[in-house]
Amino acid sequence: MKDTNLADWLLQHLHGEGAMNRQLHDLLLRAVLQGQLAAGSKLPSTRWLAQQLGVARNTVIDAYDNLLAQGCLLTRAGSGTYVAEVEREPPLGLGRAGAHKAVAPAAPTLSRRGSALLAQAGVSARQWGAFMPGVPDVTEFPVRTWLRLHNRRWHEAKPERLSYAPGGGLPELREALAEHLRVARSVQCTAAQIIITSGSHQAVDLVARLLTDPGDTVWLEEPCYWGLRSTLQSLSLRALAQPVDAEGLSWPGRFKGAAPRLVLATPSHQYPLGMVMSLARRQQLLEHCRQHGSWIVEDDYDSEFRFGTRPIASLQGLDGGDRVLYVGSFSKTLFPGLRLGYLVVPKALAAPFAKASAELYREGQLQQQATLADFIRDGHLGNHVRRMRTLYGKRRECLLAAVQSNFGDALPVLGDNAGLHLVLQLPEGTDDRAIEASAAKAGIAVRALSSYYSNPASARRGLLLGYACVPEARIAPAFRTLAEVLRRAPTPLAP
Amino acid sequence: MKDTNLADWLLQHLHGEGAMNRQLHDLLLRAVLQGQLAAGSKLPSTRWLAQQLGVARNTVIDAYDNLLAQGCLLTRAGSGTYVAEVEREPPLGLGRAGAHKAVAPAAPTLSRRGSALLAQAGVSARQWGAFMPGVPDVTEFPVRTWLRLHNRRWHEAKPERLSYAPGGGLPELREALAEHLRVARSVQCTAAQIIITSGSHQAVDLVARLLTDPGDTVWLEEPCYWGLRSTLQSLSLRALAQPVDAEGLSWPGRFKGAAPRLVLATPSHQYPLGMVMSLARRQQLLEHCRQHGSWIVEDDYDSEFRFGTRPIASLQGLDGGDRVLYVGSFSKTLFPGLRLGYLVVPKALAAPFAKASAELYREGQLQQQATLADFIRDGHLGNHVRRMRTLYGKRRECLLAAVQSNFGDALPVLGDNAGLHLVLQLPEGTDDRAIEASAAKAGIAVRALSSYYSNPASARRGLLLGYACVPEARIAPAFRTLAEVLRRAPTPLAP
Repeated sequence: MKDTNLADWLLQHLHGEGAMNRQLHDLLLRAVLQGQLAAGSKLPSTRWLAQQLGVARNTVIDAYDNLLAQGCLLTRAGSGTYVAEVEREPPLGLGRAGAHKAVAPAAPTLSRRGSALLAQAGVSARQWGAFMPGVPDVTEFPVRTWLRLHNRRWHEAKPERLSYAPGGGLPELREALAEHLRVARSVQCTAAQIIITSGSHQAVDLVARLLTDPGDTVWLEEPCYWGLRSTLQSLSLRALAQPVDAEGLSWPGRFKGAAPRLVLATPSHQYPLGMVMSLARRQQLLEHCRQHGSWIVEDDYDSEFRFGTRPIASLQGLDGGDRVLYVGSFSKTLFPGLRLGYLVVPKALAAPFAKASAELYREGQLQQQATLADFIRDGHLGNHVRRMRTLYGKRRECLLAAVQSNFGDALPVLGDNAGLHLVLQLPEGTDDRAIEASAAKAGIAVRALSSYYSNPASARRGLLLGYACVPEARIAPAFRTLAEVLRRAPTPLAP
Repeated sequence: MKDTNLADWLLQHLHGEGAMNRQLHDLLLRAVLQGQLAAGSKLPSTRWLAQQLGVARNTVIDAYDNLLAQGCLLTRAGSGTYVAEVEREPPLGLGRAGAHKAVAPAAPTLSRRGSALLAQAGVSARQWGAFMPGVPDVTEFPVRTWLRLHNRRWHEAKPERLSYAPGGGLPELREALAEHLRVARSVQCTAAQIIITSGSHQAVDLVARLLTDPGDTVWLEEPCYWGLRSTLQSLSLRALAQPVDAEGLSWPGRFKGAAPRLVLATPSHQYPLGMVMSLARRQQLLEHCRQHGSWIVEDDYDSEFRFGTRPIASLQGLDGGDRVLYVGSFSKTLFPGLRLGYLVVPKALAAPFAKASAELYREGQLQQQATLADFIRDGHLGNHVRRMRTLYGKRRECLLAAVQSNFGDALPVLGDNAGLHLVLQLPEGTDDRAIEASAAKAGIAVRALSSYYSNPASARRGLLLGYACVPEARIAPAFRTLAEVLRRAPTPLAP
């Protein structure tokens, strides 16, 4: 292409949008890639081209410089700027592009573990409203107190608090937590044994990466929380679903049998059914795991909210902290979006876990961690939990009353003595997923119990109803809507 | 250790219990960790070793593959299998007799992938101060503006913003980012293709879980960022280190050869050496990956800060977004502790990636995401980056002057045209890790270049010096301290 032709072509294609140097760069690049500017051909001088285009000379220099930096142009000393030898794009509509298609795999494909993850994904599109389980009432969170503490920490201006977190998290928060967990949950640990995480998913991910190898067996409760099952399975672990009975996790041939590398359990409040693991069963589990060198992950996700009885002491405390890794978070006590949780590990594992968490996740959020440390030490966490326990207790009674007035004793309620949700049991064979879908259409968020099972054949049917995030006055009307959906369902529900 | 000695030692320690491939793996791992097999030494061929031990060749292959996947061994194309650089256990002084005892697993044991992760961990205990690489000057962050936007968002009181994040993150932030990336980085995407992450570690973790299976090969640049190598290896991927030359990532037999499932590259600014991938190489890489159905992760960690030339357009834009997954974060432009980054995926992968990120990580932090969206849309991000580019440019010149005045041209500087650090090259054979340790004792944080290599035998020696977080007045005195350390080092450094 002659210099004048190039200038004309550029003038035709330059337009109003975007910076001129960028436009010029993109057009020249296109001309090189598509072969209008042949390899070895000389470019016009920046001064001349700027004049022709009516732009500042620096604009042209900048575009040339960029193409030089990419190796698309080259300069020869004292002689000017030339088009470099680059691999051209195939001319459009010609054979090479077609040959290309033949070699390349069809559609973008996920890997096997990726496909499996998506096929099983349990995450819900909705995160708020009646009767969304697992969500606390975040409108009751003491925003003013939090912002006061938060802004104070920001005005301290410690630069290292805006950088990456030290392994294990902010020492102040780990200290505050060790004290809190000792008093509130009978967890025996020092601050060094606490690893701050972004929640229970990260805690379980860390445990699995450090204590398991691909192909190892992990025991999960059947039913269980889908999110942690997905996390473990995508680390190439074999998830073995063990049934729960009235005393919690059980396993066939309880005193012998193959040993898992890891057991994931919710002894304080089975998720989602709600039973508490008996002391006898706890001791059997600890003994089994000690004998076989298995680790136990104790997921203590919501035991702060118990109605009636006192919280059950942790499995970690019973064990003395040798076999048990204790997991908790502030998602239920404060708000889910905070994304702060913790993992308490045995003493011998404290140093490697702290180091590995920094290596794998490169965490930060130290300003939030500092704010949370203040929030705990100043007693706001304890106050908030007590206040919420009273509030949720009233909402729970309201929901129980609504169930009773709509269905009498026809639909039994499970797991209502703690936590943020209860399970409304449905007759065997009910299609609880279809009911979930119909309820969603009627504006009510519920989750089908069967979707927490890995094996649908053995699944109990029911609905998880979260009451924590529903104002008392909304509970009866929302449940009436749900009751209508239930009455229209194929399986007969009330006598 | 000679091949025959190795075979003898293995024969002495193999015994009847457990699968032979597992025993062989464990013994070889011990030998690597305890230093009997030195870094860089070549392993015998699988055929020869199988013959010597009287086991099936597949048994040896399996043990080697496992160690490769953990990063304990590495292969060089057409040349064999070598011992990688890993953090050694303290020598136990074990002779041949009694070695068996030391081989038996100790009490609380990490898994193989856990041990490998820790053996290679590159994370530094320190995160601030002269000359910590990779850390921006967070004291310049516009705290008042940020808090104003942040507090305003909190006073809006939208409860769903305190709950879990929708898959992919806050739509407002994804919109703001799509626009920003189009203008600033020539990234072609819609908001739906953007997945908000907690940083580049999470972005790469997500890509690997969805697009790779255990045992798949991943190409990494040699040298590269240790954190992403660790993330990939602990997902049971085989990391194959490919050399970089003046044009960036290169690979033997560039137009044929085995295909990786994934390529992790830093085309805008090779980390840590600093070269820009040439246009020709970019096209070769895209072509190679298209032909073989490989994915490319483009890690664009700091290209906002270029001194002299304009930022290079992204590989994602060149490709049109079919093969490339583009990764970026705000760790360098704002502050590392913010923990917000993004992944731009091809259109066909947008929906599965959004869903899987919610399933795996259960993210939140929507108040921070909303604040960041405002910060970008109101132009504060652009302003801050421009201001910092000027500031860092001055600090860079100051450091270059300090190098010059202390060492003249005796120590060449690499990769100083962009980013937050430069590399001070040291003569071949210099023990740069020892210098890192001596500098730390003198109060100066530097990182040894060789520690970014998986294969120490081929490692260039040097020091990464971050200048971004060092006030101008501190640079010359801090460098004088470092120069003292360098002059006392065993290898002569100045004429």
